[in-house]
Amino acid sequence: MKKKICVVIASRANYGRVKSLLLKLKNRCKLQIILSASAILDRFGNIENQIRNDGFEINYKSYMIVEGQNPITMSKSTGLAIIELSSMFDSLKPDIVVTVADRYETLATAVAASYMNIAVAHIQGGEVSGSIDESVRHAITKLSHIHFPATQKSFNRLVKLGENKKNIFNVGCPSIDMIKNTNLSINKLTRDYNGTGYKINFNCPYVLVLQHAVTTEYGNGSFQVKETLKATKKLKMQVLWIWPNIDAGSDDISKELRIFKERNQGLKFGFYKNFYPEDYLRILNSAKCAIGNSSSFIREGSYLGVPSVNIGTRQSFREHGKNIVTVNYNNKSIYSAITKQLKIKKYKPEYIFGRGNAGNKIAEVLIKIKTRIQKNITF
Amino acid sequence: MKKKICVVIASRANYGRVKSLLLKLKNRCKLQIILSASAILDRFGNIENQIRNDGFEINYKSYMIVEGQNPITMSKSTGLAIIELSSMFDSLKPDIVVTVADRYETLATAVAASYMNIAVAHIQGGEVSGSIDESVRHAITKLSHIHFPATQKSFNRLVKLGENKKNIFNVGCPSIDMIKNTNLSINKLTRDYNGTGYKINFNCPYVLVLQHAVTTEYGNGSFQVKETLKATKKLKMQVLWIWPNIDAGSDDISKELRIFKERNQGLKFGFYKNFYPEDYLRILNSAKCAIGNSSSFIREGSYLGVPSVNIGTRQSFREHGKNIVTVNYNNKSIYSAITKQLKIKKYKPEYIFGRGNAGNKIAEVLIKIKTRIQKNITF
Amino acid sequence: MKKKICVVIASRANYGRVKSLLLKLKNRCKLQIILSASAILDRFGNIENQIRNDGFEINYKSYMIVEGQNPITMSKSTGLAIIELSSMFDSLKPDIVVTVADRYETLATAVAASYMNIAVAHIQGGEVSGSIDESVRHAITKLSHIHFPATQKSFNRLVKLGENKKNIFNVGCPSIDMIKNTNLSINKLTRDYNGTGYKINFNCPYVLVLQHAVTTEYGNGSFQVKETLKATKKLKMQVLWIWPNIDAGSDDISKELRIFKERNQGLKFGFYKNFYPEDYLRILNSAKCAIGNSSSFIREGSYLGVPSVNIGTRQSFREHGKNIVTVNYNNKSIYSAITKQLKIKKYKPEYIFGRGNAGNKIAEVLIKIKTRIQKNITF
Amino acid sequence: MKKKICVVIASRANYGRVKSLLLKLKNRCKLQIILSASAILDRFGNIENQIRNDGFEINYKSYMIVEGQNPITMSKSTGLAIIELSSMFDSLKPDIVVTVADRYETLATAVAASYMNIAVAHIQGGEVSGSIDESVRHAITKLSHIHFPATQKSFNRLVKLGENKKNIFNVGCPSIDMIKNTNLSINKLTRDYNGTGYKINFNCPYVLVLQHAVTTEYGNGSFQVKETLKATKKLKMQVLWIWPNIDAGSDDISKELRIFKERNQGLKFGFYKNFYPEDYLRILNSAKCAIGNSSSFIREGSYLGVPSVNIGTRQSFREHGKNIVTVNYNNKSIYSAITKQLKIKKYKPEYIFGRGNAGNKIAEVLIKIKTRIQKNITF
Repeated sequence: MKKKICVVIASRANYGRVKSLLLKLKNRCKLQIILSASAILDRFGNIENQIRNDGFEINYKSYMIVEGQNPITMSKSTGLAIIELSSMFDSLKPDIVVTVADRYETLATAVAASYMNIAVAHIQGGEVSGSIDESVRHAITKLSHIHFPATQKSFNRLVKLGENKKNIFNVGCPSIDMIKNTNLSINKLTRDYNGTGYKINFNCPYVLVLQHAVTTEYGNGSFQVKETLKATKKLKMQVLWIWPNIDAGSDDISKELRIFKERNQGLKFGFYKNFYPEDYLRILNSAKCAIGNSSSFIREGSYLGVPSVNIGTRQSFREHGKNIVTVNYNNKSIYSAITKQLKIKKYKPEYIFGRGNAGNKIAEVLIKIKTRIQKNITF
Repeated sequence: MKKKICVVIASRANYGRVKSLLLKLKNRCKLQIILSASAILDRFGNIENQIRNDGFEINYKSYMIVEGQNPITMSKSTGLAIIELSSMFDSLKPDIVVTVADRYETLATAVAASYMNIAVAHIQGGEVSGSIDESVRHAITKLSHIHFPATQKSFNRLVKLGENKKNIFNVGCPSIDMIKNTNLSINKLTRDYNGTGYKINFNCPYVLVLQHAVTTEYGNGSFQVKETLKATKKLKMQVLWIWPNIDAGSDDISKELRIFKERNQGLKFGFYKNFYPEDYLRILNSAKCAIGNSSSFIREGSYLGVPSVNIGTRQSFREHGKNIVTVNYNNKSIYSAITKQLKIKKYKPEYIFGRGNAGNKIAEVLIKIKTRIQKNITF
Repeated sequence: MKKKICVVIASRANYGRVKSLLLKLKNRCKLQIILSASAILDRFGNIENQIRNDGFEINYKSYMIVEGQNPITMSKSTGLAIIELSSMFDSLKPDIVVTVADRYETLATAVAASYMNIAVAHIQGGEVSGSIDESVRHAITKLSHIHFPATQKSFNRLVKLGENKKNIFNVGCPSIDMIKNTNLSINKLTRDYNGTGYKINFNCPYVLVLQHAVTTEYGNGSFQVKETLKATKKLKMQVLWIWPNIDAGSDDISKELRIFKERNQGLKFGFYKNFYPEDYLRILNSAKCAIGNSSSFIREGSYLGVPSVNIGTRQSFREHGKNIVTVNYNNKSIYSAITKQLKIKKYKPEYIFGRGNAGNKIAEVLIKIKTRIQKNITF
Repeated sequence: MKKKICVVIASRANYGRVKSLLLKLKNRCKLQIILSASAILDRFGNIENQIRNDGFEINYKSYMIVEGQNPITMSKSTGLAIIELSSMFDSLKPDIVVTVADRYETLATAVAASYMNIAVAHIQGGEVSGSIDESVRHAITKLSHIHFPATQKSFNRLVKLGENKKNIFNVGCPSIDMIKNTNLSINKLTRDYNGTGYKINFNCPYVLVLQHAVTTEYGNGSFQVKETLKATKKLKMQVLWIWPNIDAGSDDISKELRIFKERNQGLKFGFYKNFYPEDYLRILNSAKCAIGNSSSFIREGSYLGVPSVNIGTRQSFREHGKNIVTVNYNNKSIYSAITKQLKIKKYKPEYIFGRGNAGNKIAEVLIKIKTRIQKNITF
């Protein structure tokens, strides 16, 4: 009988990171897909149709975001997700559940599956960062049975955390896979995206901004984003701004963006909700500079060599390439760092996060591995 | 302004382990108490009245156990607990939340508090064992800001797990505190307990049995407990059996106990739901042998020197004293181990879990410590 | 395309009342079955295997009972059920949802389906009684699109409540159907049931007791059941006692039963958890008297002519036959009523609740009816 | 001891309708306030600060909206609200819970309180309308113990529904109270509101639009609102548009509004999220015409005599005054109705919904009434 492997996809970013894996798994196991969290919300980029168009069947959709975008609702959403996923796992009875990264939906998946004696496979464990993600990522590691870290240093960290070496596989980051499989020319954008504000002309120079809330600095989001707005306003260039994800504090950020947009209608700021993962890569690749605190600037950015200005603590201590310059929440520092980066066309590609065949390697392991449900720390 | 410290108590066992701490905190901070899980369920020993009688005020009660006692409901209960605790923490706004051990209510507490940027203090982290508790305990560690391990080895393990040494305090196990403060004479039992089946005469020899379900071996509970029943039936001695806790699989165990009770009405088996923590200590201390897989045989048992037969994997790898003999789920091995232990009156006290002043030490730390909400792994 | 009809079954009693309908629907539509509440809990009589043995496929199981059996958990369970059913209905996309009677699972079903624009078909609406069921039953009516009252008076009441006559069908009570289709000889019991306490000999005279909690009299359950225990203890006859259902207050009742059982081990009291619906009918039919407050004494009892003593307010104002004598919670009144009823062998059958072809009629309507989702009161 | 009366406020509109009651209750009972649903969400007009500024204490806030704004999440939100309110009611132990109108938060309040044996007082019962509100309103009636209908016809309808006359009080609609107590001059607006799009000049003529989703017509929201947009675009007048409430389908409407706003930046359309209730009255009162499907056009509008164009089925069959003209979802009919209404300056005041002393009357009843928890239908 074919193995049942269930992948829980919680956002547009998530999907970009598991698509290569899904394609490899599709015919080799009984693939199960659950969509949850912002992956099915229009406000944050509903990817349901895209996934269907890519040829996958969706087994369940779980609406589990409690509105508020503050620390309380982040916690409640985790609880609701666990309740929902329990019933879904009970119905699907997967052999392995696959989950990515470090958000609350990921934690919910790991908690539900591990209490239900289902093996948990975790992608992108062992990294370090700021925000609550830092704690949650390692907690997920301690609940997971199979690990797919994206770098050698992450591999080493998982070993130090007491995980069994036999179950850790340094496969590189699956986010790189898509780069390899995609024609990145900006002319290949699959559709004519409509944001609000200024409509970006992709054939003219632009910078890309994506700045999420830092949950452990909840309450400072307005201040933080205003510094970035001030800095980018001074640039004489198109600014393509992507709305933040759903983390606690994102409402504060979105509010500032809306106010800015209303008050600066002449400026070349275009605000976009969502791109197809392949199109996001094209847009990142063609950006003169990527600004904010998205981990994509670090992962995909290092491989693509996109000059990036990383702002604040969200990516603290995260392993990164030469394309990253880190600055504080200060409009002058941000502006100055951007102008320096703009002088550089591209950095040389780096392969910290692998060379783009992670999906294949992960699929191989998942198909073959036999797991023991009872975990034991190695020390 | 006084610090607000919130202690979440989830079971009879929990309460025994934090009572000394609560007494120390009472007048030195704004103490907040939440009762949840089996702590407010008659079936598992409701301790609400006892806590009030001991002079504490209860801020909230949270009914959050989803019935079923299987892996699905264990997971769902965790989710429901997170939802409930989020609203309660939002209302109480504690500076620190204190949580004990490794059960799903403990995990729920750690998840809710850490997403809400509240410092988490964790008692009994860093230990090893079997069951899902093993994974959950370490996940809680990765979410916690302040650690109170019960032994030196646990302290070391927390350091290895990447926790900051400054926030780890080897204070010993608070479960020992109560032993120090209690006259353990069996004649001091505070009430005349009524169980079902045979009524135990505490002045005559008896063995104590407490065997919980092993969640990662879900489905084997009937078999496991029947072996213990067979072994203890052969003893010509009173058998004081305590019903198992609420873990997945406990229904299977309880069912076997009920069947056994119906079919063996002449035997001297008495089944009890719950004892006041102090009385439990008296009963454990006077038992000729303690049989099953309760961690109390290991903690309190090593200090008291109670000969114990530890059955199966639930306590795998846990640090223990000489009073523990471990056997498999096999009635002959169990019987043979019991008979050997019965020949020993008492073991010499051991101090692996400290000398009984943990509550005081923990209170000192909690009152004084300043915590940073953003955690960072040390490697 | 075949209509999709989803039946939510929440307890052993529920199943007995829809089985004839399920058999009729099976091949005529896409039948969907969801099991929830006590229908999947061992403590209250898990009917999962029975339903599978009867040839039905179960689409989902929903664990949604929050433990506590008090008014708070009754309410919380309703909330959790609504959450669970929403996701399940979203996945099953039924055209019609069928729900029975007046309990909180029934209300949860009606709420979830009506918010999701799914037609709700309600069986046994329009009756009157005591307890919270009285209010809930009429609330369900106001949320339902298609009504299958069990009596003419109930039909009239639904019309008065402003429901559209075209959507009300007086089909009789489906609980009578099974009587028609079953050989009721007590020798036909399908298995050897094991309860606790005395083992009932079904070939000797016995009385049957089934007394549920009255939620609106929460806190009085102990007193209420003790009166019945006193009265039945005085009978010199076997007493077959069925444990109460899961309503708020049932824990109090169960506790008294356990205490009574322990203290009266010589008496011929046998306590049983659950019978197959057909076997329950045989046992009810052969009882010398049925005592308590179960609505089955009123429905099935009137058709079978079983002498019954109805205790207290739970069935207040409910339409009933001559077989019912109602008394207060008073052991002397209860005893005296029982002794009078014992002198009567059987009452003449009455057909208030129909003649046993409700399932067929309901199926016909469900298959053919076209419903408008927007309801409008008729006055 | 003072009676404990708990008022659950779920939205900006809710607050406007109970403020006069709250002021009357404040010193005469132990007033408890719970904020839930959109009342604490910035997206829909957070009124937390306003309520505090008005001198009230908030006992609890409950985040219970599950994001998605579709029928599934409407149902799930109801479930989550019931869970939350159960714990809050358990902690507050009110004697009476007051709830207003017919939305899912109202139903959740009625369900939780009635299962917990707390008396439910319902304001605005007995009315008729379209949408799921129609069914839900009557279901709430059947769960409520005390009724405060806003009109004589509603009073009569509650009697017909089988409610006990003694517990029904025709007090008029509390929404009228605020009109009496407020200087309605448009120059008295308490602040300078910032919407998006065109900034409305309140001293020049404007029409007011407020069009909510019709849940039972889910999927048609885009079409419906586009007709209204087309009609209002043809007006040569300022258009003050208020974003819709949170009902299933509101996302579709909001999306169309955003698209329209982007594409028609020159037009005098101003989009506003929220007004203080008193300011909303001023704005409604000064509008040349009120367009959409808000019940405020019918209640407050009839008293104020504001010419109104009611679109579609949401208010079907609702009792209304001469100020209301009802049309279908058709831009020509809408445009034509508006132009006719614009010719009328004001209609004469009507008193269908009372004369503005409902809050006082309701307070009197609540303070004095003794309620029986067990309800019984009158027929």
